[in-house]
Order: sequence, then structure tokens, then C-alpha cells
Amino acid sequence: MKTSRITELFGIEKPIIAGGMVWCSGHRLASAVSNCGGLGLIGSGSMHPDTLRDHIEKCKSETDKPFGVNLSLFYPQLEEAVRIILSSGVKIVFTSAGNPAMLTGRLKEAGITVVHVVSSAKFALKAEAAGVDAVVAEGFEAGGHNGRDETATMVLTPSVCHVVKVPVIAAGGISTGAQVAAAFALGAEGVQMGTRFALCDESSASEAFKQRCRALAEGGTMLTLKRSGNVRMVKNEFYARVAGAIDRGASEDEIKEIVGQRRAKLGIFEGDMQEGMLEIGQTATLVERKESVADIFADIEAGYAAARLRL
Amino acid sequence: MKTSRITELFGIEKPIIAGGMVWCSGHRLASAVSNCGGLGLIGSGSMHPDTLRDHIEKCKSETDKPFGVNLSLFYPQLEEAVRIILSSGVKIVFTSAGNPAMLTGRLKEAGITVVHVVSSAKFALKAEAAGVDAVVAEGFEAGGHNGRDETATMVLTPSVCHVVKVPVIAAGGISTGAQVAAAFALGAEGVQMGTRFALCDESSASEAFKQRCRALAEGGTMLTLKRSGNVRMVKNEFYARVAGAIDRGASEDEIKEIVGQRRAKLGIFEGDMQEGMLEIGQTATLVERKESVADIFADIEAGYAAARLRL
Repeated sequence: MKTSRITELFGIEKPIIAGGMVWCSGHRLASAVSNCGGLGLIGSGSMHPDTLRDHIEKCKSETDKPFGVNLSLFYPQLEEAVRIILSSGVKIVFTSAGNPAMLTGRLKEAGITVVHVVSSAKFALKAEAAGVDAVVAEGFEAGGHNGRDETATMVLTPSVCHVVKVPVIAAGGISTGAQVAAAFALGAEGVQMGTRFALCDESSASEAFKQRCRALAEGGTMLTLKRSGNVRMVKNEFYARVAGAIDRGASEDEIKEIVGQRRAKLGIFEGDMQEGMLEIGQTATLVERKESVADIFADIEAGYAAARLRL
Repeated sequence: MKTSRITELFGIEKPIIAGGMVWCSGHRLASAVSNCGGLGLIGSGSMHPDTLRDHIEKCKSETDKPFGVNLSLFYPQLEEAVRIILSSGVKIVFTSAGNPAMLTGRLKEAGITVVHVVSSAKFALKAEAAGVDAVVAEGFEAGGHNGRDETATMVLTPSVCHVVKVPVIAAGGISTGAQVAAAFALGAEGVQMGTRFALCDESSASEAFKQRCRALAEGGTMLTLKRSGNVRMVKNEFYARVAGAIDRGASEDEIKEIVGQRRAKLGIFEGDMQEGMLEIGQTATLVERKESVADIFADIEAGYAAARLRL
């Protein structure tokens, strides 16, 4: 795969970034991805601050390659998380949700490379104005929280590349070498992959979740909860209750009560396939076998080379 | 651009097909696309049988290159349309909606090349079993009628290529040379473009429609009417009424009454931007200027060449 401004920015060999996913992206996944020449991210969203510190320290002991932390700007103990990131010498932070102006300047002053995740060209411009080093443009196909405009990666990537000068990392619907090549054709200089890494051996997710997602048929996920945030999830029993309530015009309060708390942990981490919120991307239908991070990198290299020949 | 099984199948120079769109794809657009080396399709969906015959005859007089007709299997006077197609010597038919087994055999016996439009790998296999020569895999990004699974082109294209032996034409979210290159990287051997051709000079759509769609901001279209067929349209006043009714859990009958009849004609052809159903794809946000079919072909060639270099 070609080097790009993204490989240069992070000091990595391959422009493949593993998204920092709740209940999946611990030190094990992050260090494995970095050790394969990509960029591993620790997903702080599902961690208490002490757990985050622990994962950062373990990741440092497992790799001497660059790795980073994903930090939602809605993280409840944001100030504490920032202190941990600064004191532990993390060099790369991907922020998501919220206003990038909130934290970018402070992190940059501390010498940290900052990337913000966006779902539109409008938000990409806002992130660029806040001083980020790159943006992740995440399309409609992605699992979990998603943008309101529902712009898919095929349209979002060139739209974002068209307006910003910083390098663009494409995300959403990318799990194979052919899709990486497509993202590069669209103008991206790197890709962030969530789904495929969420389902591999080094992911902290439960086996039940991995197996269920690898067996998904087409249309097996759907974007829902559109009024309260937009989440793509597996169409299981929990989803059916939510979708049924929305269909009959239920109030926001009623829907909030159905959703309740800790649904993602229940599903992804604890393996309740009926009642958990199983956040995963559309491209799960292309992930079929149990595999390691090293298997994924080898397969992507081969798929990318084959795709290049098709042009 | 590379030749492929698709250019061979149709006897065309460039693997670019203009979708047969209601109220846009008359003889003028179809012949212009064919004369540029692509494949033009007449969109029969908005034509009475006599109008269809007239457009076929005019198209024949305007080009000696291959062209085709798009025929919805839900066309009310299907038998009459088939007779016109057979008697006028049309050599290529793209069928959409409905069961491809219904007509494929009969058209093939008459020496016609048959392609069916699908929105999933499952339907692609069904079309292949019915004997089609190729499939169009149309993703979530596409304007107008759309599949239930909401699979976007980035995932749909490789999913379909993975299961069928016939060549695959990618559609949905494709309007630039970079997107054509991405579709090829994903395994497609041709592309069907709707939106960009719908908005060009040779399209039969009203100027008001073309201008409105070229000025769309991100998120300016949305997929709605999910229970009764799934249609992507511009978020205008008509859309807002439909979406509001769905949100409050209105009955199918009430929604049908709001939609009424002839909304697509009212909007696309007659130019009522408030009350018309303005069917257009997500990629309209990338179409910014008034242009001819020849302009589009030149721009796609340049964009494709630039995209190849990025790999």
C-alpha cells in the first residue's frame, strides 16, 4: 500500500487505523494493530479513567510503535481522561462527537497529534478550523453512532476531500483491501476500520457477539434511534422493540425507557444477543471467519493489490 | 478507462451507463450518452406506450451506437411495452423491480441482452438464475426507488461481485471519475449513473429541478416511505409532510393520501419544487454546474485518470 500524508503524520508503515471502539478496543487490539504497521487506538468510551490509564500502560509495554487513544468529547470525566493522556505520554488522540474546538488547541500545545471524526464536509471544515492534523470522514455504513445526514462513504469521502486541506481518513463500510483501494480512489489517504477489527481475536468483545456479527445476512444491521443520536446496530430482539416503538410514534421518553442503560456493554461485552445493543457496521456481512489482526493485514494487502490491477 | 466484460457485452467504448430515469431519460439523453461512447437508456417508466415507441424511433435516428430501454416489471401496460421493444428492434433491456424470471427468458429468446437492477446479493443470485447477462447493483445512495436493506454501494458492490459470475454494474453514489474508479476497485466492471445525467442539459427534467438539485447541501436528500417502497427524494415541503406523518405513526392509508398521484411528474418534469416528489441521489451534492453529456464524459475521464494515480 502507498505511503501518504497519513503514514507520515503518525509515523506508521501502513495507512490502516483501527477505530477506538467501545468494549472492543483495549490494549490487546491496539498494540496488535500497531505491531502490524498500522495505527491502533484504545477506545476510552467504555473505560473508567483508571481502566484507561491501565490500558495505555499495557499498550506501551506491548509495542514500541505509535498508538493512540479515541476520546469522545462527551466522555463524563473528560478532564480526568485528558490528564491521564497528557501524563502518560500518549502522542495521538482521535476525538469524536462534540465540538473539536473544545480540546484540540490544548492537546496540540502538549505536542499531541489530533484527529477529529466527522460525518459531513461542514463538520470537517469546523475541525480543520479548530486546528486538527487530519479528519476521519465516517459514512452511513459505520456501526454505532452515526451522522444525521446519512451520507454514505462513496459520497462523503470525496465531499470532505473537496473542502479540507488536511489529509482525510475514510471510515464506514471498509473492511477489505478492495474497499481500502476504493477509499484511496475517492481521495482518502488512510482508512479507519472498525467492524473487521471488532470481530477479530484480539478484540475484547464477547465470542457470542463476534459469532453473531460474522453470521449476519444482508440488511442485518439498521440505523435507528434517529431522534436521539443515530445508532447502527444488529436487528435483534432489542432493536425490534425500539423500531416498533418508533414506528407507532412513541414519545422520546418511552423510547429512552426502552433503551435504558448499559445496552452496549450487555450485548458486545457480556454477550447477550437478545437484549444487548449490538453496534456493528454494514460491512460485517463481508467478515466471515475467525481471524487475528495479522491475518487481517495480510488479507488487506492481497485484496488491495488485486483491486489495483482492476483499474 | 478500461474495457471490461460490460463494454464487450454491449459493444460500447466506455463502461458508463446512464440510468433510465423517469421524466429525465428520453431519446435526447439516451442518444447523447451513446454517441459519447457510453450506453444510453430510455426510461419507459414515465412514458405511455406510444411515447415509448416514439422515443425509441427518435433515438435510432440520432445514433447508430447501441442504446437500451429500462423497463419496470411493474409497468402497467407491460405486454404492450414488450411488443414495442420487440418490434422496434431494441437490442438491450434493463429490467427493474419485480421478479426477473417473468420476462428474462422471453427477451433473451428474441436475441435481446437483458440486465436486471438489484439491491442485494440475494436478488443478484435470483437474477442470475433467471438468465440475465449482467446485474446492476444499486446502493442506498441512489435517488428514487431503493432497496429495503439500505446497503450502501461500498458494501453492496463487493457483496454482489462475491456471489455472481455475470458482470456487475455498480450504481448509487456514482457521479465522478473518482467514484467510477472506486466502483472498479470494488469489483464492478461498469457503472450506471443516474443523478449526474438527470441534471445535465440533455435530460428532460425541468430547469427548476436541475437547479434545485445542483444547489443541494449535504443531507439534502433522504430515504423515506420505507413501508411502501423506499424512495430517496429532496427534503422539500412535500417530504416534510410525509416524514412528519411517518414520525407520528400515521396509518398507511393516511400516508398514501398525502403522497397521492403524479408527484414525480409534478416535481421533476413540471418543476413544482414545493409539492413535487424530487427523486435524486446523494451524489447530487457533488454536481455543481450546468453541463452537457459531453462535458460529463470528459470530466469523468480526467477524474478517473487522477484517481488511478492515487493508488
